[in-house]
Amino acid sequence: MKLLYSGKTKDVYELEDGNYLLKFKDDVTGENGVFDPGANTVGLTIEGAGAAGLRLTKFFFEKLKEKNIPTHYMDANLEEATMTVVPATVFGEGLEVICRYRAVGSFLKRYGKYVKEGQALDAFVEVTLKDDERQDPPISEDALDMVGILTKEEYHTLKELTQQIAQVVKDELAKKDVELYDIKLEFGRDANNNILLIDEISGGNMRAYKDGKYIEPLELEKIIVS
Amino acid sequence: MKLLYSGKTKDVYELEDGNYLLKFKDDVTGENGVFDPGANTVGLTIEGAGAAGLRLTKFFFEKLKEKNIPTHYMDANLEEATMTVVPATVFGEGLEVICRYRAVGSFLKRYGKYVKEGQALDAFVEVTLKDDERQDPPISEDALDMVGILTKEEYHTLKELTQQIAQVVKDELAKKDVELYDIKLEFGRDANNNILLIDEISGGNMRAYKDGKYIEPLELEKIIVS
Repeated sequence: MKLLYSGKTKDVYELEDGNYLLKFKDDVTGENGVFDPGANTVGLTIEGAGAAGLRLTKFFFEKLKEKNIPTHYMDANLEEATMTVVPATVFGEGLEVICRYRAVGSFLKRYGKYVKEGQALDAFVEVTLKDDERQDPPISEDALDMVGILTKEEYHTLKELTQQIAQVVKDELAKKDVELYDIKLEFGRDANNNILLIDEISGGNMRAYKDGKYIEPLELEKIIVS
Repeated sequence: MKLLYSGKTKDVYELEDGNYLLKFKDDVTGENGVFDPGANTVGLTIEGAGAAGLRLTKFFFEKLKEKNIPTHYMDANLEEATMTVVPATVFGEGLEVICRYRAVGSFLKRYGKYVKEGQALDAFVEVTLKDDERQDPPISEDALDMVGILTKEEYHTLKELTQQIAQVVKDELAKKDVELYDIKLEFGRDANNNILLIDEISGGNMRAYKDGKYIEPLELEKIIVS
């Protein structure tokens, strides 16, 4: 088993059969010891965070499978905090695709002149580059095409899949009276150039609120999966 | 004559007949005494800069008129450094629409992971909000629609007009062996809700190069108009 990549919250190994194994770590992103799903740095380590993230990821990826939405998910081992996935390559050096139902976070920072904090947004989709050095800049459909990361057709597929997946997550959260404010997803291409959801869907990828109060990732996992 | 607005490089007055009068000032944008068309602050004052900006603006707006591209231009008084224009309202609290032929400036700052400095771009259009406090953030077609600044249809009109206008400027510069790298434009709506080019087209709105060397606004005016 060969380590391909060591990420902030996950390690990626190549298995002998060619599939990949993701090992979920107990590190979560944030700054100064405070969890922040939008942060680029590992802020703290929480025992059991990796297993909890995987449990939620397994839950959502299996829901998506039922709905025939393409993902890289094959199976999960909760004891080992590992997930087996189909190999996929990211777009460019990695994109994040965000779907927003409420104006918070970087959207509010950028467009605060025109929106109020928490204002409803209609499944607004935007793409940011994974580029720590340049603070993950937002990038438009035209620019993605111009720099050769995504064709216009791929962009539209990505946007549509993002809205479908976000809706599935939103509906599941709503069953427990939790409201999804925003979620960030990652996509890749499989060996046949099909676009599929990769990475994970856990508390660390989204902002969820209950009765107007932000729900921490570990608490979210307990509410949704238990 | 009533002062409506005092801008960084221009004052706007309302005339008795309802049209507007723009008074071009000798202040140019920049930082630490160095001219920078992308800057938000007035960096220096150059005697004759206002009149030179107006001369170039008059030249380009009259070219656009010949091509039936809608602008707010009526006439200009070079001695007074004033221009009479049709009243128009800006989109939201003001947008800048940029057309890029080379990757420099804020495009390079944001997407430097994917493009080389000076790399050719195919009349790439992007919109930024005029918002000094938030460093003029870029905003996508979807976001402009979502926050109620521009409909999708208006966005497409704006993009098409921007590419047409930039091409006219590029062609005029090319006649003097000057290359247009990028240009920023402003648009508004007239009383009948038609979209038209407003503000000015001068050296302060664009980056122009000759033999690989950046041409200062005042020099550009001399090269193009004389």
